[in-house]
Amino acid sequence: MQKNRLEAFSDGVIAIIITIMVLELKVPHGADWADLQGLLPAFLSYALSFIYIGIYWNNHHHMLHMVRHVNGVILWANTHLLFWISLMPFATAWMGENHFAVVPTVVYGVALFMPALAYFLLQTAIIREQGPQSILKKAVGSDLKGKISPVLYLAAILLAFRCPWLADVIYVLVAFMWLIPDRRIERILGES
Amino acid sequence: MQKNRLEAFSDGVIAIIITIMVLELKVPHGADWADLQGLLPAFLSYALSFIYIGIYWNNHHHMLHMVRHVNGVILWANTHLLFWISLMPFATAWMGENHFAVVPTVVYGVALFMPALAYFLLQTAIIREQGPQSILKKAVGSDLKGKISPVLYLAAILLAFRCPWLADVIYVLVAFMWLIPDRRIERILGES
Amino acid sequence: MQKNRLEAFSDGVIAIIITIMVLELKVPHGADWADLQGLLPAFLSYALSFIYIGIYWNNHHHMLHMVRHVNGVILWANTHLLFWISLMPFATAWMGENHFAVVPTVVYGVALFMPALAYFLLQTAIIREQGPQSILKKAVGSDLKGKISPVLYLAAILLAFRCPWLADVIYVLVAFMWLIPDRRIERILGES
Amino acid sequence: MQKNRLEAFSDGVIAIIITIMVLELKVPHGADWADLQGLLPAFLSYALSFIYIGIYWNNHHHMLHMVRHVNGVILWANTHLLFWISLMPFATAWMGENHFAVVPTVVYGVALFMPALAYFLLQTAIIREQGPQSILKKAVGSDLKGKISPVLYLAAILLAFRCPWLADVIYVLVAFMWLIPDRRIERILGES
Repeated sequence: MQKNRLEAFSDGVIAIIITIMVLELKVPHGADWADLQGLLPAFLSYALSFIYIGIYWNNHHHMLHMVRHVNGVILWANTHLLFWISLMPFATAWMGENHFAVVPTVVYGVALFMPALAYFLLQTAIIREQGPQSILKKAVGSDLKGKISPVLYLAAILLAFRCPWLADVIYVLVAFMWLIPDRRIERILGES
Repeated sequence: MQKNRLEAFSDGVIAIIITIMVLELKVPHGADWADLQGLLPAFLSYALSFIYIGIYWNNHHHMLHMVRHVNGVILWANTHLLFWISLMPFATAWMGENHFAVVPTVVYGVALFMPALAYFLLQTAIIREQGPQSILKKAVGSDLKGKISPVLYLAAILLAFRCPWLADVIYVLVAFMWLIPDRRIERILGES
Repeated sequence: MQKNRLEAFSDGVIAIIITIMVLELKVPHGADWADLQGLLPAFLSYALSFIYIGIYWNNHHHMLHMVRHVNGVILWANTHLLFWISLMPFATAWMGENHFAVVPTVVYGVALFMPALAYFLLQTAIIREQGPQSILKKAVGSDLKGKISPVLYLAAILLAFRCPWLADVIYVLVAFMWLIPDRRIERILGES
Repeated sequence: MQKNRLEAFSDGVIAIIITIMVLELKVPHGADWADLQGLLPAFLSYALSFIYIGIYWNNHHHMLHMVRHVNGVILWANTHLLFWISLMPFATAWMGENHFAVVPTVVYGVALFMPALAYFLLQTAIIREQGPQSILKKAVGSDLKGKISPVLYLAAILLAFRCPWLADVIYVLVAFMWLIPDRRIERILGES
């Protein structure tokens, strides 16, 4: 298995997922501002997921960059990750069309949690393949963001049953946590 | 014909097929757990096909890796394979939406059988092009999994008329047979 | 402009077109053989267009292989070709859903004629860029198939007004003419 | 971050956007010329957006060609650009289906303005990364077309409230301004 073909396939799948998501932004039948306004929740949901998938593409790229040899476990851990990312357009559309209602907001949280878990499994598979001298292990370090994110998703999922908008705020905050360049966030998190 | 462009095109088509399949997971209008529950068969059908297409991508990659020269027969055998894989989203959605009813389960079996046949034809075309010293022929060996799979699909298709859920179990088992690393399964199959 | 990026972009667009076409094979609501049977015209239309787009991908690849330098005219002639190919899913679905009725069959013919014309323009742009020693010009030769195809499409379009099924037969025959390896068809055509 | 993977991902996303746009050209239920005629505005809207996205792909390619090092700002400025381009299929379909009505024409203008702005931000991020010796800065020069386009989009947006067809004419003219090879347009613009 050549690494570059795994990269190309993953890039292709992620590029398609990030793009077909827009097909769920259904074109309204009317031609007034009110018709557009009704799409605002769907648009916000779309924008948030676009950022998340962009983050996954970026992080995934960096991680694969450090892979030397692709074995069967890495291959299927990667396919497993792509599977969960592929469900984001569904969760995004459901949450957006239902104006951030309780159940869709919970499901969106699950749709964020599962790729995070799958990403962690892929990372573990690569580190295990690389052995004790793993450069990925060194690069990942304490992996504060990687460990905090799933916890925050779980917290948001539980919160969503009571107060969905607060869960949505957490989803947004986690996304921004990943957007901020690493050193600053690690310093902030490292201090606490 | 450069091999790497054939690879890139095939990867692209397979990446798109595996991804657009999710568009058939129609976003429900309601926002309750019951609405989500109604999608369970479609989700299971989706997950199974995702695994199958992942297997095809992986095997196809390994096979093309051994190709030295692409002739017209290989080119069209490959396009023929992509054609049948491209019909999997349709069969997947039809089976899922109809909760694994008889006819859609039969058709799903056909949708598994045809790419298996096309894959075999592509493999044969490559081996013929490589001549008596074919490295692909050596690598394929007795090709137990490749020969058993279409037989199992046919058995499942026949079973489906009487008992569709048993056919679905066979579809799942064949997928898992391909997921298990080669040596173990070959040892198991070789012993019998 | 690097040639390989033009190739990659064109391959991507063609791979997407050939694949999203299957989304027009609408999953029927019922679960009986009759529901599937109703899709037969759409399936045949899909299969024919799949072959055509496969032919375009193949020929386009061979042609670009001979390009040394990409100028603005080549770039836009290529985009123009992709535009017309991108309309094939529409024409395919319309003809299939309407069971090869007169107007959709005429429009399908136009949807075959326009890419053929665009392909010829791209070929001309490349030959002009290469100058009197053009290797593409030598390779194309008398270009019998390239010249006969648009004439046959036009004939089929005119025929379709009277007898659409005969036009469909011509569309199929032209596709098979391209599938048959070059030398044989050129010998046949060259003799007449 | 390797530049070629940023290119490949961007190319993939742009190729998908330009292609899935055709899915909004809804296949009519009837099979008459009148059914096709009703699609004319949607077709024109599609053709215009196809040209625009083709221009973006071309310019984006040239710009990335001059990038040596990809930093985090460039990466996210690029994702930001892709986000706005991804909304063009929506705006295209809305304008086409509503026959160039006022509000959709305004929104289409916004859908042209935002990528232009995002493109400018990406360009600025690359120039800043390259420092005072920036080759991109030299290549961009006075960037007349880049500066005039957003102004024309804004003018068209304002005009659209009164006279949408005039706004559409401006959208078409700006597209053609980009299609005309650089030297001629720069000479024309430079003289005034």
